[in-house]
Amino acid sequence: MALIVQKFGGTSVADVEHIQAVAARVKAEVDNGNQVAVTVSAMAGVTNQLVNYVEQTGKLYDTAEYDVVVSSGEQVTSGLLALALQNMGVPARSWLGWQLPVKTNSAHAKARIEGIEADKILASINKGEVAVVAGFQGLGVDGRITTLGRGGTDTSGVALAAALGAERCDIYTDVDGVYTTDPRIVAKARKLDKITYEEMLEMASVGAKVLQTRSVEVAMKHGVRIQVRSSFSQDEGTLVVNEDEIVEQELISGIAYSRDEAKITLIGVADKPGIAARIFGPLADANINVDMIVQNVSADPAHVATDLTFTVTKADLERAVETVKAHAKDLGYKQLLSDPDVVKISVIGVGMRSHAGIAQRMFQSLADKGINIQVISTSEIKVSVLIAEEYAELALRSLHTTYGLDGE
Amino acid sequence: MALIVQKFGGTSVADVEHIQAVAARVKAEVDNGNQVAVTVSAMAGVTNQLVNYVEQTGKLYDTAEYDVVVSSGEQVTSGLLALALQNMGVPARSWLGWQLPVKTNSAHAKARIEGIEADKILASINKGEVAVVAGFQGLGVDGRITTLGRGGTDTSGVALAAALGAERCDIYTDVDGVYTTDPRIVAKARKLDKITYEEMLEMASVGAKVLQTRSVEVAMKHGVRIQVRSSFSQDEGTLVVNEDEIVEQELISGIAYSRDEAKITLIGVADKPGIAARIFGPLADANINVDMIVQNVSADPAHVATDLTFTVTKADLERAVETVKAHAKDLGYKQLLSDPDVVKISVIGVGMRSHAGIAQRMFQSLADKGINIQVISTSEIKVSVLIAEEYAELALRSLHTTYGLDGE
Repeated sequence: MALIVQKFGGTSVADVEHIQAVAARVKAEVDNGNQVAVTVSAMAGVTNQLVNYVEQTGKLYDTAEYDVVVSSGEQVTSGLLALALQNMGVPARSWLGWQLPVKTNSAHAKARIEGIEADKILASINKGEVAVVAGFQGLGVDGRITTLGRGGTDTSGVALAAALGAERCDIYTDVDGVYTTDPRIVAKARKLDKITYEEMLEMASVGAKVLQTRSVEVAMKHGVRIQVRSSFSQDEGTLVVNEDEIVEQELISGIAYSRDEAKITLIGVADKPGIAARIFGPLADANINVDMIVQNVSADPAHVATDLTFTVTKADLERAVETVKAHAKDLGYKQLLSDPDVVKISVIGVGMRSHAGIAQRMFQSLADKGINIQVISTSEIKVSVLIAEEYAELALRSLHTTYGLDGE
Repeated sequence: MALIVQKFGGTSVADVEHIQAVAARVKAEVDNGNQVAVTVSAMAGVTNQLVNYVEQTGKLYDTAEYDVVVSSGEQVTSGLLALALQNMGVPARSWLGWQLPVKTNSAHAKARIEGIEADKILASINKGEVAVVAGFQGLGVDGRITTLGRGGTDTSGVALAAALGAERCDIYTDVDGVYTTDPRIVAKARKLDKITYEEMLEMASVGAKVLQTRSVEVAMKHGVRIQVRSSFSQDEGTLVVNEDEIVEQELISGIAYSRDEAKITLIGVADKPGIAARIFGPLADANINVDMIVQNVSADPAHVATDLTFTVTKADLERAVETVKAHAKDLGYKQLLSDPDVVKISVIGVGMRSHAGIAQRMFQSLADKGINIQVISTSEIKVSVLIAEEYAELALRSLHTTYGLDGE
């Protein structure tokens, strides 16, 4: 007998019929002799509607009241799932964030879980009840309802698994696992059996939004094994685990991409101390997130000017250009170039820590296809390049082959 | 400066625009220098939808989970009204049932308020905040959310007013007060300035559903003055108060009617002890509520048989007839007659306690119009008659004139 946490997202609980299908999956785990705690999101579309109500009251709003309104969606689903389980003869009860409680800080609308009191819920589970926990919500130190930010139910599930000492946390979603790359683009993409926390974090950061990033951080911190699997099939999914659980670590686990990038290049920037701060300070003030930054070594023999390239999200491009232009005099660049038609491709794998030449193979593979690399950035387990958007599919397919990831 | 409780029902908070109009009414009371606590229902239609979800999971359901689901409607409205108030520059915060708490017993789906802890909410009000309390909900002794039954937000408002020692509880609804009779039928119906708790209870029990019956009982017990008034006009409404607040008590305060009655007559029932129990026992077992009961003195000189007439709701008529027929052998009646085309007309007034002849005037007035009385029942402050439904309007108008209630 094991204790398993299951998490079901909005599309899995879209209506009562779907909730009954979820109940059947929970029952199957119970029939296997396991103890189960479930955490659920709001029914598909509900959170958006509630957020819309809040925004109708005014653009600037008290996030404590926002939390009161939007947390109601998960409350409804938790009650309905408990009812559906009871109707199938499975003892069950719902738990709201304040009832355990799921203790968070008081950063309303983006709260962080500080701890979950497990005594009451464990007593219920040990009595033979399935515990259905409303996801996404907690109790702030101010005694009020908090929410964890969009996608927060993933984090609820993982934190619950940590608090209960669960065998693993199964995240049911509309994809059946984590793939070596996007199977809609690369037909030969393979579903991974296992992936490390670190790789999963990098995958998420470059756009493969299977799990909320924070949930992976919490899992890594507490050693919670996550399984990403489909609500709509019985296939095994992908385990997200500690590196030491993966005996035969592949060199490269996956290739991710993000189309949500736009490039800005400043030509002829004064090559002197403090210039970067003068550029990125105003962008930070405008709440514009800068991703890749490359400062070229000056070709100017007198070192008086250099070129600087950075990326922002496509949505922020216009504001970023305006912000930089507003400080043009202060920055003293010669020319500003911007380009929204770029894509970031990332090769990810913990194996590259101990292997040289990974980046080189990437550059060679792209060069062989005549693809020009515009910007390069690297981390310990990731190499990212920025290329023209039109080459995205070609690059993904050729890199997938290069690193031996192609399946049948 | 007074502390006033305001209650707004579902049609008053139907959408964000309506909620903003409610906020404006709350602000007006604040601008008058008053302290305000508000209690709100779910947005119109929301509770029905939530109940529908619950019923989709199964016909028999755990009322504790029902409460988790349906209480979410009031939670949403309370957050949105607090936001709307803040947006108008009025400090406000929402309070959920479990936060005060509003302590109830654990009779889920029909809980009774046992007490409201007022310390925290009073501290907030004294800090200058409007307290927006989610209606209809409380915290059971089991530590779970409870709800008070349909219309329960009226009771939330009155109980809150009692706990806070409020000047009065204003119940905002879609009518502008309590009338001498239904103004849709009797054009000369007048809005009452004041009515006693006892009269209000009798009005409610015969179908004038302006207030939840229990809210009036709670108001009577704690001496909370209620004002029934319209959300959509600025006119003063009707005060529901203790008898001693009404200096010039009218003889008759109002004439109510209920079309939701159906009549069953058993002819030739054995006239012996225990026969009533044998008839009404099976009806009670079938959860059928019996209203008026009349047993005629037997015309049979040997006193072996008598006739028995009683009324049930129209919806229960068919089941009631079947239930009686199923026990036909045991009851031994000669004939069963049923008639759904009846209406109950009630003349109500605390003044009749000290005045004779009220009932007689009613009977004479109906006789003058050629209206046959089928059943009569009386209480200390009410005389009710059952007549053929086709005479309902005629009876209401003539009685309204008879008792001098006609306005301009």
